[in-house]
Amino acid sequence: MELEAMVLKFPLSFKRLIPKTPPSPIRLGFRKLSASSSPTTLQSALLGHSTRPDFPILDQTVNTSKLVYLDNAATSQKPTSVLNALQTYYQTYNSNVHRGIHWLSAKATDEYELARQKVANFVNSTGSGEIVFTRNATEAINLVAYSWGLDNLRAGDQIVLTVAEHHSVIVPWQIVAQKTGSVLKFVSLTEKQVPNLEELKEILNSRQKTKLVAIHHVSNVLGSVLPVEEIVGWAHDVGAKVLVDACQSVPHMEVDVKSLGVDFLVASSHKMCGPTGVGFLYGKSEVLGSMRPFLGGGEMIVDVFLEHSTYAEPPSRFEAGTPAIGEAIGLGAAVDYLSGIGMKTIHKYETELANYLYESLCSIPKIEIYGPKPSETLFRAALCSFNVNNVHPTDIATFLDQQYGVAIRSGHHCAQPLHRYLGVSSSARASLYFYNTKEDVDTFIAALKETISFFTSFQ
Amino acid sequence: MELEAMVLKFPLSFKRLIPKTPPSPIRLGFRKLSASSSPTTLQSALLGHSTRPDFPILDQTVNTSKLVYLDNAATSQKPTSVLNALQTYYQTYNSNVHRGIHWLSAKATDEYELARQKVANFVNSTGSGEIVFTRNATEAINLVAYSWGLDNLRAGDQIVLTVAEHHSVIVPWQIVAQKTGSVLKFVSLTEKQVPNLEELKEILNSRQKTKLVAIHHVSNVLGSVLPVEEIVGWAHDVGAKVLVDACQSVPHMEVDVKSLGVDFLVASSHKMCGPTGVGFLYGKSEVLGSMRPFLGGGEMIVDVFLEHSTYAEPPSRFEAGTPAIGEAIGLGAAVDYLSGIGMKTIHKYETELANYLYESLCSIPKIEIYGPKPSETLFRAALCSFNVNNVHPTDIATFLDQQYGVAIRSGHHCAQPLHRYLGVSSSARASLYFYNTKEDVDTFIAALKETISFFTSFQ
Repeated sequence: MELEAMVLKFPLSFKRLIPKTPPSPIRLGFRKLSASSSPTTLQSALLGHSTRPDFPILDQTVNTSKLVYLDNAATSQKPTSVLNALQTYYQTYNSNVHRGIHWLSAKATDEYELARQKVANFVNSTGSGEIVFTRNATEAINLVAYSWGLDNLRAGDQIVLTVAEHHSVIVPWQIVAQKTGSVLKFVSLTEKQVPNLEELKEILNSRQKTKLVAIHHVSNVLGSVLPVEEIVGWAHDVGAKVLVDACQSVPHMEVDVKSLGVDFLVASSHKMCGPTGVGFLYGKSEVLGSMRPFLGGGEMIVDVFLEHSTYAEPPSRFEAGTPAIGEAIGLGAAVDYLSGIGMKTIHKYETELANYLYESLCSIPKIEIYGPKPSETLFRAALCSFNVNNVHPTDIATFLDQQYGVAIRSGHHCAQPLHRYLGVSSSARASLYFYNTKEDVDTFIAALKETISFFTSFQ
Repeated sequence: MELEAMVLKFPLSFKRLIPKTPPSPIRLGFRKLSASSSPTTLQSALLGHSTRPDFPILDQTVNTSKLVYLDNAATSQKPTSVLNALQTYYQTYNSNVHRGIHWLSAKATDEYELARQKVANFVNSTGSGEIVFTRNATEAINLVAYSWGLDNLRAGDQIVLTVAEHHSVIVPWQIVAQKTGSVLKFVSLTEKQVPNLEELKEILNSRQKTKLVAIHHVSNVLGSVLPVEEIVGWAHDVGAKVLVDACQSVPHMEVDVKSLGVDFLVASSHKMCGPTGVGFLYGKSEVLGSMRPFLGGGEMIVDVFLEHSTYAEPPSRFEAGTPAIGEAIGLGAAVDYLSGIGMKTIHKYETELANYLYESLCSIPKIEIYGPKPSETLFRAALCSFNVNNVHPTDIATFLDQQYGVAIRSGHHCAQPLHRYLGVSSSARASLYFYNTKEDVDTFIAALKETISFFTSFQ
């Protein structure tokens, strides 16, 4: 409640408190790894350093300090190879796709469809017919909500979610529920602050008919991972489909839609080293094939008559109008880049970083980190959302940025219901990617300590 | 009907007819301007030449010939300044918008919103609150169809279109009509092959209640322009709203939403020198303000509770999830580029090019050019759709590309109902932009003559 009360007070007034001469520079030393770090730490630790040259954006000064970018759950940076792919498209073969027979158009079409195949391979889909390019993961969920949801949900049907879902998973189903009379059912958290799987099972086995389970793979606030394969089994046993928001998993680990068995899975390019303006929906071919179109227009039709039209097979059926051609090709290049490193390597490195981040934050007094401890879960994602007693997260994020060039996020992270459940209105969040290093974590922690010290000195 | 019958025959078989040694090179001379060209031709003619260096993509060899890109109605090329804006975003301040308070995020948010303001100014909207960024014009129309259409159309209400509409204008309203019981009414063409305005007036003044008029500004097939301002007056008189597909006008001429008086207007970035993956909807603020959200997710909400949400004001209400940030900023740079030349200058130059193209095509025997003659309309857009007796348009486009590097389009140009109305299944289309020159037209015409000669030699 104290944090709630500070929403109005602190963020509006603290700027005048910031000293005109910044605090003395943070003295950094490479901290010794704790016993829980894996024996391969030294080797894996090279990943952050070895990939850094691919991201020249990180080599800049922000507010007189070297940038430390720890807002990767909001969006990732893009490697040079992705930017080159974008430029090559625009500079050498920019053209509309599927429509022209001239050289530029044929080349653009080939590259656009190759990008689709790359994404299909990346998530081990049966084929590129199961990959629909959308603007972002949010549009992909809305596509399912409007196309599958409106046709398949009836009054009283249940849609099961968790309280930890991102707004993009909640709001489309609220809209569909209002239109169909279906009912949203939310799974709460256990004491360890992970979704309560026993409760989920109970809901699925209740008398109420569940038609859909819509859940995250990795939580963008808690850093926890759901056992999707297991949940899919339970859901399919009662005839429910499963939609997975994989925005925080696809960029960071191997995701195999076949072994997960999901019906729908969505992710965004911009969180996985690709351009903004594109994302994708994976849908099982038999499910996509049964769905009516969502947006109408060119590309998604076979024949248009004045009064009616016939529609193309998926994925074209769901891609109306000129798609984000350059951006999809850029996403294909991002997939190449990630695959080049190897998702297992990325996941292993990030798990080490995650533990290091968590342990480091634990050294800060009066901090509350949300989500499970690393030892209480299969793995934690390399992100931590937290609050420090008596310091508003917006003050923390602003001070870290202005005084130390450390970019973290504060707010509700598009998860207001989760924050409400946790008893706070907002939190600070540091989220890492494979190009981050332990030195980045050290800089952040040292700066955070100074920040807290600065604010608490006025209390 | 002959053309119809050739669909199956020619495009499948002609490749074996193409000689291994290409026809002798076309001898080009700069053709003398006809009497109908304006006296300022010489000065304006510099535009194509002076802007050409901004589009290095045009300086390339395709199929052993220098590229002549005449498929601009499908998509335009992008000037270096736009590509630089994209690269600058991705290389120096890539970050998510509206969500973070750190420097990169603040900079990205400022630039994204500045791009919105640029687009608002470009179409003389009252303010940036009236500009919603979408993936493309097609999504913008679907947004209106789902959000405004489903709430405002009832069984028996009329939606008035013309037979010349693009699929993106027809199909969304077919979907809405199926859901609401409203009725589509199509205005036919006059003998001059332009939409029959008398018929439109009669439909509006009939007993049937018209709620919406959804029309093109400039036809992507006929090259004709509709008197939108006048039509808006008639529509508003009977209480109908007007949606204008301005994809072929906004890139080519001054478009002023205030003086046109339209309720909705849509356009695509990729047709106006901007990146793919972004377009926009202009909506009158009072109309947008009255509309329910379309896609649900982050960004478009104020508060999300488990069972319901409250929504942001427009334009945020209609922009769910992470937007096409880099692409919108690129569109802003495209608007800067076009404004730098001046839309009046572009329009004047293109009108000259349009007349030159039309006249030049008229010199070809047995050609049928669709749409009005330049002398029969206010102006013709710089595009011509045509058929040549006994030669399939796909053969023409393929031969032009393979033998001469001339990129035109063949097909139905996302206007099947119009082609059916014209009695053909497809046409060839050459479409120009301000970076094209009269020499481009000369090359095209000479190559077209050789192409026709090649195919007719077998007949």
